[in-house]
Amino acid sequence: MKRNMLSLFAAAAMAALPAAAHAADATPGPLDEPAKVLPVPTADISPEMQKFIAAPLNPDWNEQWKTGAEARAYAERQAAKVVPGIPALMQRMHVKMEAATMGGARVYVITPDEIPPENQNRLLIHVHGGCYVLFPGEAGTPEAIMMAGFGHYKVVAVDYRMPPEAYFPAAVDDAVAVYKAALEHTPAKNIAFFGTSAGGALALEMVLRAREKGLPVPGAIAPGTPMSDVTKTGDSFYTNEKVDNILVSRDGFCDAATVVYAKGHDLKDPLLSPVYGDMHGFPPAILTTGTRDLLLSNTVRVHRNLRRAGVEAQLQVFEGESHAQYQFDDRVPETKEAFGEIAMFFDKHLGK
Amino acid sequence: MKRNMLSLFAAAAMAALPAAAHAADATPGPLDEPAKVLPVPTADISPEMQKFIAAPLNPDWNEQWKTGAEARAYAERQAAKVVPGIPALMQRMHVKMEAATMGGARVYVITPDEIPPENQNRLLIHVHGGCYVLFPGEAGTPEAIMMAGFGHYKVVAVDYRMPPEAYFPAAVDDAVAVYKAALEHTPAKNIAFFGTSAGGALALEMVLRAREKGLPVPGAIAPGTPMSDVTKTGDSFYTNEKVDNILVSRDGFCDAATVVYAKGHDLKDPLLSPVYGDMHGFPPAILTTGTRDLLLSNTVRVHRNLRRAGVEAQLQVFEGESHAQYQFDDRVPETKEAFGEIAMFFDKHLGK
Repeated sequence: MKRNMLSLFAAAAMAALPAAAHAADATPGPLDEPAKVLPVPTADISPEMQKFIAAPLNPDWNEQWKTGAEARAYAERQAAKVVPGIPALMQRMHVKMEAATMGGARVYVITPDEIPPENQNRLLIHVHGGCYVLFPGEAGTPEAIMMAGFGHYKVVAVDYRMPPEAYFPAAVDDAVAVYKAALEHTPAKNIAFFGTSAGGALALEMVLRAREKGLPVPGAIAPGTPMSDVTKTGDSFYTNEKVDNILVSRDGFCDAATVVYAKGHDLKDPLLSPVYGDMHGFPPAILTTGTRDLLLSNTVRVHRNLRRAGVEAQLQVFEGESHAQYQFDDRVPETKEAFGEIAMFFDKHLGK
Repeated sequence: MKRNMLSLFAAAAMAALPAAAHAADATPGPLDEPAKVLPVPTADISPEMQKFIAAPLNPDWNEQWKTGAEARAYAERQAAKVVPGIPALMQRMHVKMEAATMGGARVYVITPDEIPPENQNRLLIHVHGGCYVLFPGEAGTPEAIMMAGFGHYKVVAVDYRMPPEAYFPAAVDDAVAVYKAALEHTPAKNIAFFGTSAGGALALEMVLRAREKGLPVPGAIAPGTPMSDVTKTGDSFYTNEKVDNILVSRDGFCDAATVVYAKGHDLKDPLLSPVYGDMHGFPPAILTTGTRDLLLSNTVRVHRNLRRAGVEAQLQVFEGESHAQYQFDDRVPETKEAFGEIAMFFDKHLGK
């Protein structure tokens, strides 16, 4: 590209870039971003969400697990904090839950008290987040409970095997086993996959894996802020470093956990980094992220790659939110909003 | 919101936030973002676009015009760099252009060599960007030429009055005068408004102003990275400060220019900051921005407000791009992609 093109059309858009650089920092290349103070944004953000945005950096962001056992010990301490809140959540969402197995994999079946006629023959399959090592058992179900409650769908939440019980590709294989079992009584076009973070990646990986196995693709998917590229590639790994108060850094706990799960497998494999997968023929997808999300780039890259492959794909980006905050608490207005959008999308695209 | 809710559901999503803060920077509130170096992102970005992303900060970002005459002097120097490239652009886009007036306002009428049958009775109205002071005359037409060429639509580009010739609300009034004149021979549902930056804001302001005047809303709009909030409100004014290499800062040239145009008028008026307008009844909208855009927040806030008002609205966010870079050069693949998405959206929503 010639220099005069740059000066011409950058000018045409906004401001003229001069043909000759005139300062020491005027060389094309990496950018030096100065230190700054970021106020808590408030415009168009609920007071409840503002509190999540105002929270300090996750103090555990730099946990560096080396083994499945180490990760699991942390996961169990964390799960012990999550599980006690689940009965009240279920009550607010008007759902029931029971443990079961499907296709040989552990699941929780979540059933709303009322299922409207159009959802009677629909099924959602949930894959939880947690960097492939966190949220074992019931601790992995809050997002599934919220989706069942807000959307009035029957949801099967996959309690996929995690380190040290099993390693890559156990998570996606368990999820696809559940899908295969579901296909015995529900048509593919009536089924959707959804999840957040590693669960967002898994929703994409499930489509790739199902296709490998000759299974039909589901009717729709909702990958929330997917860990779509675990090779530390994606611009917001840099721009949102220490801006995202949940993941915080590309070199943090989630990166360490994924390396544990992968157990030496190539991280660029589309079953670990689905942004590198062939997305032609994917079902309609709705993606969710926030402007401060460390995985903002890896969400918009998936969105664009889906569009480039001709797939119907919608993107929702929430102002000021860090990784996965749109599903932290069912009592936050933006949570209801995010799940409401996903439910509307599913309603439009799923068979009945 | 109680503290245990925070610790419970932040945990449920990703990592446990402890009930008690344990470090000096662990107080809720503004965040200290450290200085960093941002590499030039390359994944899923064309080499041509990488060059725009790699460009140093716009050296003119801190121009602080105090009067319409000062802004105009700069605008004319800049326009002189843009205009010579227009004949070649028109040739590549296979369009013709002629100056005219419509409803008393100056316009350029851009006509593609070939207009497919479905677009014969459709018309797009373009409002250029440039902070309400830049790109007078032909210099304001490149985006309109690209839309005409990529989408095969007849486009009327409004050469609205700017300081020092006229001040707020001259821009929106000229644009609405053109719309009113267009309605004499084209149904509202066959007309779309589009533009970038101030032009993105104007596309929204035109809907508000048309409604005030009792005119019907158009069939669709495409506000690109709209200057939807000129009160310096929006999180990415902070997070993308000195990350966006075009606008660079909320205290830069664009802010100064808007103050000149507003000439003392309340900046929170929805005809200057349309994010504060009532968006119920808006036509379907497609919004475009980039992850490094200083106006990322003010694009996603409009998207969410449209959705909250029940309006069909799509969002496209391009990896690594700063303000308005998706329309800097017709030869960049992402430019063709962005305009292609807008054309598809118009094709879906406009009458024939």
